[in-house]
Amino acid sequence: MNEKSSKASPLSGLRILELGHFIAAPFCTRVLADLGAEVIKVEPPGRGDPVRRWGKVPDGQGDSVWWSVHGRNKKSVTINLKDPEGIKVARQLVAHVDAVVENFKPGQLDKWGLGLPEIEKANPEAVVVQISGFGQSGPQRDRAAFGLIGEAIGGLRHLTGYPPGATDSPPVRTGISIGDSIAGLYGALGLLAAIYEKQAGKKSSKRHVDVALTESVFSLLEGCLPEYGFFGDIRQPQGSSLATTAPSNAYPSKDGKWFLIGANSDSLFARLCKAMGRAELLSDARFADNPARVSNAAALDGEIAAWTRTKLIAELEAAMDEADVPASRIYTIADIAADSQFHHRGMLQRMPDPRLGEVLHPGVVPAMGFDQAKAIRWTGPEVGEHNKKVFVDLLGMSEAEVGRLAKAGAV
Amino acid sequence: MNEKSSKASPLSGLRILELGHFIAAPFCTRVLADLGAEVIKVEPPGRGDPVRRWGKVPDGQGDSVWWSVHGRNKKSVTINLKDPEGIKVARQLVAHVDAVVENFKPGQLDKWGLGLPEIEKANPEAVVVQISGFGQSGPQRDRAAFGLIGEAIGGLRHLTGYPPGATDSPPVRTGISIGDSIAGLYGALGLLAAIYEKQAGKKSSKRHVDVALTESVFSLLEGCLPEYGFFGDIRQPQGSSLATTAPSNAYPSKDGKWFLIGANSDSLFARLCKAMGRAELLSDARFADNPARVSNAAALDGEIAAWTRTKLIAELEAAMDEADVPASRIYTIADIAADSQFHHRGMLQRMPDPRLGEVLHPGVVPAMGFDQAKAIRWTGPEVGEHNKKVFVDLLGMSEAEVGRLAKAGAV
Repeated sequence: MNEKSSKASPLSGLRILELGHFIAAPFCTRVLADLGAEVIKVEPPGRGDPVRRWGKVPDGQGDSVWWSVHGRNKKSVTINLKDPEGIKVARQLVAHVDAVVENFKPGQLDKWGLGLPEIEKANPEAVVVQISGFGQSGPQRDRAAFGLIGEAIGGLRHLTGYPPGATDSPPVRTGISIGDSIAGLYGALGLLAAIYEKQAGKKSSKRHVDVALTESVFSLLEGCLPEYGFFGDIRQPQGSSLATTAPSNAYPSKDGKWFLIGANSDSLFARLCKAMGRAELLSDARFADNPARVSNAAALDGEIAAWTRTKLIAELEAAMDEADVPASRIYTIADIAADSQFHHRGMLQRMPDPRLGEVLHPGVVPAMGFDQAKAIRWTGPEVGEHNKKVFVDLLGMSEAEVGRLAKAGAV
Repeated sequence: MNEKSSKASPLSGLRILELGHFIAAPFCTRVLADLGAEVIKVEPPGRGDPVRRWGKVPDGQGDSVWWSVHGRNKKSVTINLKDPEGIKVARQLVAHVDAVVENFKPGQLDKWGLGLPEIEKANPEAVVVQISGFGQSGPQRDRAAFGLIGEAIGGLRHLTGYPPGATDSPPVRTGISIGDSIAGLYGALGLLAAIYEKQAGKKSSKRHVDVALTESVFSLLEGCLPEYGFFGDIRQPQGSSLATTAPSNAYPSKDGKWFLIGANSDSLFARLCKAMGRAELLSDARFADNPARVSNAAALDGEIAAWTRTKLIAELEAAMDEADVPASRIYTIADIAADSQFHHRGMLQRMPDPRLGEVLHPGVVPAMGFDQAKAIRWTGPEVGEHNKKVFVDLLGMSEAEVGRLAKAGAV
């Protein structure tokens, strides 16, 4: 049932060097690798990128199952960037790529002899993407780039909670490394924008993309900044509902699950009331239009919850589907894996992994007409799995030289 | 103190037609417009895109202050897409652009006579980006695309809450249209990837980018899918803390604010304890290493909160800064507007808006060496402000013809 097509991946031919670790830069390059780019990931010799051990690891050793996804479609080479001979190899690689993506602490690559001047010297044409917590300049650039902190400074954390006074608990995390991922997406976008400029033959000097996690998160805050500047309004979190429209909330089912209903237009609300067998609510002045419903949202949510509590989640879904009211259970990963639409769209790929047997992989986003199954070319590689392919075949080193460098601890 | 540079915006020369409304497609094109693309936004004659009235509106009429940001750097033209003469004008525009971005319900443009076949006929070279809730194919493609629902089906909502049993309340919204924005970023990325392919001269047939909000959100779920597939694990929300490392949480200050501390390594934890004047905790077996601290996280968080409750938020910040422990207050938009780093990086731009006077605009993300102040070329335009510029200067219509079409209700 997967979507099939014979189209190639759009970014084939684009070669990228990743000097990254953890999430932001590796996510950036994985998105590009998924779309066909050739990504060469540099890892420290030995156990490689520490992110390989993040998340659950079979038998408590080796790489995590997440690595199968997080590292997919990339080539792994080992280089010791703390070793001058390693840096020489890295510079040779720089000379062979279209772009470099890195997320070390600002200034770290300079200390190792692989800062912007050295990258430019090795390859004046390379686009350089630098991802960091706070950006490559400014009074706070050297602060530690914890996603936890960056998401809070970007303004997301404050908005992810219940309204002031509604609870004693602090706002929550989104539960995923959302700041790193969004920064990674901006890095990929900036990289392609700079490549566009080069391909268009524009005369511009070397282009660096300077992505800050804080700014990436901040960029998603809709009208918060202009509303603060103009009205002095400080946007507050809204919990599970919306401050400006009703009903739109999460309601409890008989079997203890949460069911989302978005019936916040007059016609949707009418269909909801009829489906609940409560047509009389339509002539209730408290719920006559959206402003009235917002003013009486607590009472309205109470009426809806009184109904949802009498039904199993599957019954609620069937009722809202029949009434054509936007609604859904809140999906866990198990619900995702069972979803007909994700299946149809090729978003659930059973991939053979040489280490693990079979691993369930998310499909490639965005869909661009290629075959989803073929778009995952291979799963996360072993540390240094592509050393020979890259050092010998691409850089033209002799195998003896590679052996010497390995013995010397440089690769 | 803004970052200055004389570099041009990278995407100048790229022309994009937006057939969009609300958030996802308009955010996609705004990101591209911010990087220099020429974006022509099509709006219905009269009051234009309904999103113009979202958020706070001065004096309760006209466009919101958010529109000043959401519509910036774009040209606005009016076309009635429900009118066959309007569709003809839209097809002429299609012939003059590099890409089309739309987020109508799947099938809607086809009904109006502007589906993929007509777009391809008008311009065989145009890249087409389609953003929708569930994608352009599959059994659920026609479901209403509410962000509320898409974020839940993509798996984000479940993870944005307290652990099972910790509360009677449902998981919360992030408080912003995060699913729309992430889908918009993927749309921009796919658009540039398809442009890369064209510029590289690759022989591929026409490229469509099919972005689903659900899949965009799902793509950020780290190892959730492979961990479910391999171990049967269903990732659960973690509230304000992290399940695998401690201490990392939000703690209350004396002045009633939340203070984040991420001291989840042995060395950070040692510095935290000394800063709290509680060096004896370092020899407490319950907190000896990360596994011990995770097992005793509640007790540890209690010790830390007992200290944070005695200090003002500013004192806590100074103490953690001195101890070099990652920490921060949870920023509101007021904190963002006062932040030295955001100021230094040009992320807070006072823009003259012809309607509103001055509006505070977020800077352009990602930074790419251009002057942040110049990167915002103009604020959100009036409905149809660029009709003459586009219909006469670009399409070569006579002013009389534009007048006739306007009278006929086509533009």
